[in-house]
Parts: sequence; C-alpha cells; structure tokens
Amino acid sequence: MKSGKLFSKEEANLLEEIILNRRDVRGNHFLNKTIEKDLLDKLLFSALNAPSVGFSQPWEFIIIKNKTVKEKIKQSFDEENHKAIDHFQDKKQKEYIKLKLEGIIEAPINIAVFYKPSDKPVLGQTSMSKMGLYSVVCAVQNMWLTARSLNIGMGWVSILNEEKVKAILNVPKENKLVAYLCLGYVDKFYTQPELELIKWEKRKEKDSVVRIIDNE
Amino acid sequence: MKSGKLFSKEEANLLEEIILNRRDVRGNHFLNKTIEKDLLDKLLFSALNAPSVGFSQPWEFIIIKNKTVKEKIKQSFDEENHKAIDHFQDKKQKEYIKLKLEGIIEAPINIAVFYKPSDKPVLGQTSMSKMGLYSVVCAVQNMWLTARSLNIGMGWVSILNEEKVKAILNVPKENKLVAYLCLGYVDKFYTQPELELIKWEKRKEKDSVVRIIDNE
Repeated sequence: MKSGKLFSKEEANLLEEIILNRRDVRGNHFLNKTIEKDLLDKLLFSALNAPSVGFSQPWEFIIIKNKTVKEKIKQSFDEENHKAIDHFQDKKQKEYIKLKLEGIIEAPINIAVFYKPSDKPVLGQTSMSKMGLYSVVCAVQNMWLTARSLNIGMGWVSILNEEKVKAILNVPKENKLVAYLCLGYVDKFYTQPELELIKWEKRKEKDSVVRIIDNE
Repeated sequence: MKSGKLFSKEEANLLEEIILNRRDVRGNHFLNKTIEKDLLDKLLFSALNAPSVGFSQPWEFIIIKNKTVKEKIKQSFDEENHKAIDHFQDKKQKEYIKLKLEGIIEAPINIAVFYKPSDKPVLGQTSMSKMGLYSVVCAVQNMWLTARSLNIGMGWVSILNEEKVKAILNVPKENKLVAYLCLGYVDKFYTQPELELIKWEKRKEKDSVVRIIDNE
C-alpha cells in the first residue's frame, strides 16, 4: 500500500469490542454528573468526521442543557408515548407501559440532530433523495461509538413529534429531525441490549438476513 | 460503575483514529484480491451488532460476487449517472464528468443492504417512521469503520435506480434499498476525503453547525 495508515489485528479487535459494548441508555441509568467540555468536543468531532454524500456535511447539532427546554421536549415524548401504547396489545402492551424509554430530564446533555437540505444539487444524492438523511445517521453512529469508548452512555429517543421538537428549538421548517440523543455518565452498561434481556425481541440469526450471490 | 467494560483513553483515541482514517473508496483504487471469508464475517458481525429501533434488526444483506449481476447493477449506475450530469452546471459539470464515482466491477465484493419493514408495530418507530431505515444506516456505518480497521476499502454507491436494483437482485417489493457497497483491498487510503482534496466542497466549521442552548 502506497499511503494510508494500516491498523493491526489487535486494533481491529478493539473496535469490535466497542461495537459489541455499545448500548442504548435510558433515564434510569444516567448519573447526575456533567460531561467535561473536552469530551463533548470529542463527540462532536467524531460526528463532523462522519461520511457524507458528496461531502455535503448536511448536519446541524443543537446541544441542550436548559431544564425548561428539556421539560418541553419531555412533554412531546409523553404525548407520543401515550399514543404508542395503543399500537401494542395484551401482554406486549403491559410490558410496553413498564419500559423506561427515554432519559431527557435525567441526562445532563441532550443533543438534537437535524438534516439541513442543501440549496444546490448534491453529488450522489440526485437518484436517492434520502442519502442526506443517511449521512446524518452516520454522524450519529460515530457519536454513539465514541461516547461508548469514553464510557459515556447515550440513548436515541424517537418517540417524539418532529414538528413540536422543531418549534421548541426554533429550527427552520426545511430541516428534518433525525435524532434526539440523551448523553451522560451511567451507573452501568448492560452487556446485551435491554430489549433482548427482557425478551421483547429475539436476536436474528445471521443466515436469516444474509444471502450470497456467488460466482457461477 | 457496577457493570460494563471501561475503555481507556488510549482505546478511545484509537477509535478516533479509525474514524478519521475511514474513506469512501472508488473503483480506481480497488485491487484484484479476494476478501478472506473470516474478514467478511467480521464485517457482517459488526452490522448485526448495530443499534436498531426496538431491537427490530430490520436489515437484509445481499453479498454479490457474480460478474453478470455486477454488470447489470453497473448499467443502472451508468444510466443514473448520465442523468445526474444535468444537475450540475459549467465548471462543476466538467469536474463531475471526470470523477470516478463507483467501484462496482473492480471491487471483488458488492453488498446491497436493504430495510425490510416489520409486519408488526415496532417499539420506538410509532412516531417516526424512518427509524427503521436509520437502523440499517447504523449497521452500514459499523461495517464501514470495521472495514477500515481491517484495512479494507469500502465505497457507498448511491447513484442507482432503486427499483432496477431490486429487480436485478429479486428483492421483495416492500423492502427498501438503503446502501449499495463496494468492498475490497486498495492501493491506498487518502488521508482526506477525495472531494475535499479536489476542492469540490469545503469542510464546514464546527461553529457553523453546532448551537448550544445552555442553562440560564
């Protein structure tokens, strides 16, 4: 190879370990302890170095520490979560009601992540219009892994009304809410997804989701 | 902390290095060298351990090694890329035409990644319907970082006609194409995004995309 860093087997294994240990953290696990400014900067840095279609970097991040703003967002969660209950029946509904599904108030930092459409054509986005949204998700996943490597918990809250969140945060109409993240130190990290532990869903077997079209 | 692995500062720094060195690789850099089965398995393993809304794991992966299938996909790229040219004007159009934007034929392995909607309600997806698609993107980003840690190049091709790709791969109507990936060993990894190097787009300043709503 002419140029570019080569990683060792041990370094690849460490990434695998971070990926395996990443969890979605809810409010019952966040500690009342601030995230240091340099670590918050590291999280944002990892987002800004995510891939983006046509190098468009179509992301905007709003860091929320303000209690009043958090309470308004929490209200949107409560409304949407109340509606969500009706989607589930019988035993599943009873289980759903018991779950703690967000950490908006408990997490010291919330970050709302938006997609901001470009005002000119974007290379690579002319055939698949959602590519800009997908770039923003790549930034979120970089932040999630980085948070875990810094032993910081992160939860992605999606039970929200996008229009209400945009109004609360005074965000331009054309922007799209991609993710609402809760971040903070935690009392523990589960070793498995919480929804796997409580048997809400089973883990899928590799063979059920992978198909190979081989050489003939 | 009661449970869960703690990572060191050095380990967090290594993740940052992998994130910074990840690149989108095009066909003019792929080598004619197969990816070993155990490394391909590692890539898929990282995808299967991505976060997914409600632990729904709504992904399907089709691994394509077959030359005839690749050629059909390449034809869809050529058609879409020809249409894309008209989106750009003057100097940008001349630059666009010169760019190599895919590695479908050159890469030894292509992976088409689909979102498969669930036939029951998904926890966390009742208010924001795109959450399932976003889970699939998280899986792709895990694969991208894992590929880089294994010194394997990956490129995401989005200049494709989704319906044509689905027809070629015989994929059910309800599934959505999220990503078409080209993977293989490379002659080099750029240290910066290629589109930044040729000055197609500038890197955005952190302050232009981050806003803070602080405590009062």
